Amino acid sequence: MSANAATPAYPTHDPSDPVFRAHEGGKLGVHATSPLRDRADLSLLYTPGVADVCRAIALDPALAARYTSRRNTVAVVSDGTAVLGLGDIGPLAAMPVMEGKAVLFKHFGGVDAVPVCMDSGSVEELVDAIARIAPTYGGINLEDISAPRCFEIERRLQERLDIPVFHDDQHGTAIVVLAGLLNAARVVGRPLASLRVVVAGAGAAGVAVTRLLARAGVADLVVCDSRGIIAPSRADLADHKRRLAATTNPRGLTGGLGDALVDADVYIGLSGGTVPEAEIARMAPDAIIFALANPDPEVHPDLAARYAAVVATGRSDFPNQINNVLAFPGIFRGVLDSGAPQVTEQMKLAAARAIASLVPEPTAGEIVPSVFDDRVCDTVAAAVSALA
Amino acid sequence: MSANAATPAYPTHDPSDPVFRAHEGGKLGVHATSPLRDRADLSLLYTPGVADVCRAIALDPALAARYTSRRNTVAVVSDGTAVLGLGDIGPLAAMPVMEGKAVLFKHFGGVDAVPVCMDSGSVEELVDAIARIAPTYGGINLEDISAPRCFEIERRLQERLDIPVFHDDQHGTAIVVLAGLLNAARVVGRPLASLRVVVAGAGAAGVAVTRLLARAGVADLVVCDSRGIIAPSRADLADHKRRLAATTNPRGLTGGLGDALVDADVYIGLSGGTVPEAEIARMAPDAIIFALANPDPEVHPDLAARYAAVVATGRSDFPNQINNVLAFPGIFRGVLDSGAPQVTEQMKLAAARAIASLVPEPTAGEIVPSVFDDRVCDTVAAAVSALA
Repeated sequence: MSANAATPAYPTHDPSDPVFRAHEGGKLGVHATSPLRDRADLSLLYTPGVADVCRAIALDPALAARYTSRRNTVAVVSDGTAVLGLGDIGPLAAMPVMEGKAVLFKHFGGVDAVPVCMDSGSVEELVDAIARIAPTYGGINLEDISAPRCFEIERRLQERLDIPVFHDDQHGTAIVVLAGLLNAARVVGRPLASLRVVVAGAGAAGVAVTRLLARAGVADLVVCDSRGIIAPSRADLADHKRRLAATTNPRGLTGGLGDALVDADVYIGLSGGTVPEAEIARMAPDAIIFALANPDPEVHPDLAARYAAVVATGRSDFPNQINNVLAFPGIFRGVLDSGAPQVTEQMKLAAARAIASLVPEPTAGEIVPSVFDDRVCDTVAAAVSALA
Repeated sequence: MSANAATPAYPTHDPSDPVFRAHEGGKLGVHATSPLRDRADLSLLYTPGVADVCRAIALDPALAARYTSRRNTVAVVSDGTAVLGLGDIGPLAAMPVMEGKAVLFKHFGGVDAVPVCMDSGSVEELVDAIARIAPTYGGINLEDISAPRCFEIERRLQERLDIPVFHDDQHGTAIVVLAGLLNAARVVGRPLASLRVVVAGAGAAGVAVTRLLARAGVADLVVCDSRGIIAPSRADLADHKRRLAATTNPRGLTGGLGDALVDADVYIGLSGGTVPEAEIARMAPDAIIFALANPDPEVHPDLAARYAAVVATGRSDFPNQINNVLAFPGIFRGVLDSGAPQVTEQMKLAAARAIASLVPEPTAGEIVPSVFDDRVCDTVAAAVSALA
């Protein structure tokens, strides 16, 4: 989910492996939604009939939402600079992830998503290219674009476009983390505002999680990057981290992650690194640990459970999977159906609360619904649409 | 097919009209090619499994052709500046045509095509944007981009990219016109090289038809634009027309279309204008008339038949429909299957001959196969692949 410079050993390409077999020929296809049987169909779907629809849209562009696939189509856009934990592997190697994302969009949200994998470049170049092709789509899902470029790319695109622009690595993660934390706080009987929260990782996900938690009412947020606690005293901070330094860390902590974790109530790992057991052990009683690095959580959930009352990971083989797929299909379903021009902060909060609401009696073993709970998309979409 | 400044009266938007009903909700959908049933499928198609495929492609980019949808996906790219005969109606209003084109790509060629409708701009801006997103696709079909920009856009894109770039308004038209003319020449018993051919229209289609006919052996080509015969003596010629002036019109004709048609054997209308009966009447005996403007041929085929031995139009309700769909599905099927990095001139000639070969005994009423003849795509694809 977050960029990671450490690249694991490359496996051998093994065409007989089930993963490679599942990818043979790609994972996406395009189909016509109406039958093309004969010349009569051809004259309706293409020339000469199509010209009437083109003319009508030229006269009234709003009709594009009714008579083109734009209404239900989202571009999954990446330059391949921060793919999963693999780092900058380029647009071609990013394709399987973007296709997979499109599969999830369709399966969980009924959204027709198409990959757009692009050669990387300056912020300006990427924004220009994406904005130029935007008339094709009803929304833009940015994916696996490295920080801090992703922040400016998203902001500038949303300023230019009248369709939603949503960087899922940021906001999808933030929404599902907040959903999980809302319910985890209930499990330990603590109001959100009283929690001391440590966010490990100041990339795309870390920044967005921090912002959304603050907006949801978390008052004591401390963010750490690979060099330690982010504080105004640090001279090595890029712009987005300077903004974090100015708005978080109310007790003025300095030092490493281990210092931040002393008496902390919540650890949210978005770093791809690891946390020593000794540091986890310093957390407050009834701690909450979200170790979200994939495939290897920052601390093994069995170990974390010795020190925490609630443990969540990004993995499907442990309880409490914090998975973006709980959010993005419903988010886009909601904005596409309601014609909302952007995903607002209020919509993100509402989406998190909607996800949390699907577990009315949360327990240590269940703070979020299953990704296969088919109420999730509709519930999130309804919450988003209501704010459009 | 060609740009036309004259915009017909706009019809009322009528949702109950069969054309609008056929367009309700758009004409395209995206689907997964493998089932997503449970967590096991999810782990193959998305994380964590997908990471193995990404790593393998990062190590060996050629594997993208095997394991991503790129191998069978073509972008249908337009800036909406020359849509059908409607002129510059913009990217939103162009969407129904590009979706229709994608429907044809899938139906006739098994190609997964996706529209990319972009805001217009300079040649440089369009080339940069298209080249940047090109890693997503196995080929680029340019569509309805105004002349003369389309020539440079196509040339510069093909220079930059290692996938085929094909402006269908140019080459698709040229290939099918040549196919038809090969058989029309047989009907009148004349070798191609002996024919005096007049091309009316010096836009995208006119230029490409002229070039391909010359390459196929037609020696006496005269091209007319709205101001008359293109000749070196004209001072008002843009670059692409100056090149035509230098390479056509061997008898040094001047004047209007009517002058060009005196004793001409072939008239190929790609202009969207009209030709008076008196001018058609000047053509040589056993004339061949291709009146390809849609929906209104430059001369009505019944009238043309009084003066010509063979008449073709772009319409499905008259014999001899010269329709690009005879070419582009097979062209792209061929280059995608063979991995050819571009559509060469030899491939275009071979495609035209392949289409013509499907009517072994051409008659005045049948010079090209039906668009629903299901041998067409495979035959064209085989001819193209053989040259890859």
